Amino acid sequence: MPEAPGQPSRRIALLLEYEGTRYAGSQLQANAPTVQGELEAAVRKVTGEEARSAFAGRTDAGVHALGQVAAFSTASALPADTIRNALNAWLPEDIAVRAAADVDAAFDPRRHALRRGYRYTVLNRRARPVLDRRFVWHVPQPLDVDAMDRAARSLEGERDFAAFAAAPEHARSSTVRRLECFRVRREGERVLCDAVANAFLPHQVRRMVGALVEVGLGRMTPERYASLLDTAPSSAGPAAPARGLTLLWVEYARPLFADAGPERAGGGPGPA
Amino acid sequence: MPEAPGQPSRRIALLLEYEGTRYAGSQLQANAPTVQGELEAAVRKVTGEEARSAFAGRTDAGVHALGQVAAFSTASALPADTIRNALNAWLPEDIAVRAAADVDAAFDPRRHALRRGYRYTVLNRRARPVLDRRFVWHVPQPLDVDAMDRAARSLEGERDFAAFAAAPEHARSSTVRRLECFRVRREGERVLCDAVANAFLPHQVRRMVGALVEVGLGRMTPERYASLLDTAPSSAGPAAPARGLTLLWVEYARPLFADAGPERAGGGPGPA
Repeated sequence: MPEAPGQPSRRIALLLEYEGTRYAGSQLQANAPTVQGELEAAVRKVTGEEARSAFAGRTDAGVHALGQVAAFSTASALPADTIRNALNAWLPEDIAVRAAADVDAAFDPRRHALRRGYRYTVLNRRARPVLDRRFVWHVPQPLDVDAMDRAARSLEGERDFAAFAAAPEHARSSTVRRLECFRVRREGERVLCDAVANAFLPHQVRRMVGALVEVGLGRMTPERYASLLDTAPSSAGPAAPARGLTLLWVEYARPLFADAGPERAGGGPGPA
Repeated sequence: MPEAPGQPSRRIALLLEYEGTRYAGSQLQANAPTVQGELEAAVRKVTGEEARSAFAGRTDAGVHALGQVAAFSTASALPADTIRNALNAWLPEDIAVRAAADVDAAFDPRRHALRRGYRYTVLNRRARPVLDRRFVWHVPQPLDVDAMDRAARSLEGERDFAAFAAAPEHARSSTVRRLECFRVRREGERVLCDAVANAFLPHQVRRMVGALVEVGLGRMTPERYASLLDTAPSSAGPAAPARGLTLLWVEYARPLFADAGPERAGGGPGPA
């Protein structure tokens, strides 16, 4: 987004946590509730300005975030912590600003991001989920987590992920991404699929996990999974449900937020 | 509950998970939704019988459970796993039967329980909770977790917990309980307060945690906390909010449930 003439030069970065359940995704839409829409309404209340916000990554309808990063420009002179508290007073209960900080006027949360970390959680037990039903995909049949992990690792590297992209995405400029880490482990009844990349294509994590569960169920070999990369664009099977996916963190060259809680700083790698 | 003449002699134990948010507690009430009320309605649908259910422990309005144990008697010949699946088809989304098993006809989930494990979760960060807002107490000021842990341990042992009981409770027969373990630790932004006892008085865990947070905030010394035991019945300060409390498990002389998930059996100690 080019800087408009007369745009305020103070720029604020926000560390956002949200539950995606009742939103049509992170990005603004005219006739549906979105995280960006709620954030910009709150910014209007706090600053009196019509500010456009930018997000580090788009999350689909139903996808959650513990550490999404957004930014907006303002002429407000309020301290960043006051802005955080005031935004939290206006935002609905399923969105909160964990931290706010002054950043360079040219800060672009999407273009300046170095890596993103996502977690996909599968609840692998017979009974349906209850306490975490908004945050997991329920797979009742036993999953072979070792096979899933082997298959996941085989995708690591700088590769063309067009096969895992949402339908219109292969028309985009490039579908090459650097998948730095894709690992699967069991933690009690949960199967955690953690993915780190410089960036992800739309639907990429959900499609990678959708096919991965086929491996876990014994319906696809890890070798066949690795070869999905060579198949036609958007052909790598259906996406796993949105509700199991959470954007954990976005990493920048320097940490943006000094103090997101009484203990640890946010915005860096690792689940918050 | 004495066995009524002609009562069916087959007895089924259930391992229940529920979110307490929209219930007036676990125990049946005439004009409010309760977990027991929902369970007995589902049993009626599945067996066609008007069965009364018994619970291992009462949980207050808003308190959750990962491993509550309930039991009912039935003349049904359905296999226990079929009963579990059928109950889950009728129960609302905030209650599920994790496992069902045949037990001795005289099984009493409350009287036969040896120990209960509860977890109270405090979210200790500046921003209000989002993803886990139904399951934590938000304390934004920094907490001294070491002091909390020292204070908590000082309550361990067989003691008279009348000071921590809900108001009418000191009129009951005995307020002595064996608190086997009461420990506090930090896990990221969360402060976890885990308590194990042969049994708990109503409101006991929430009142123990309410005063413990006073210790964490530096408003009460660990020594003063220990001396609360010697104060008048129900005088140990206000209870922590219900939503932070979860009944994790109930232990019996023998495990009741062979297989609650694809991996580990339920009903024993440790978070499920």
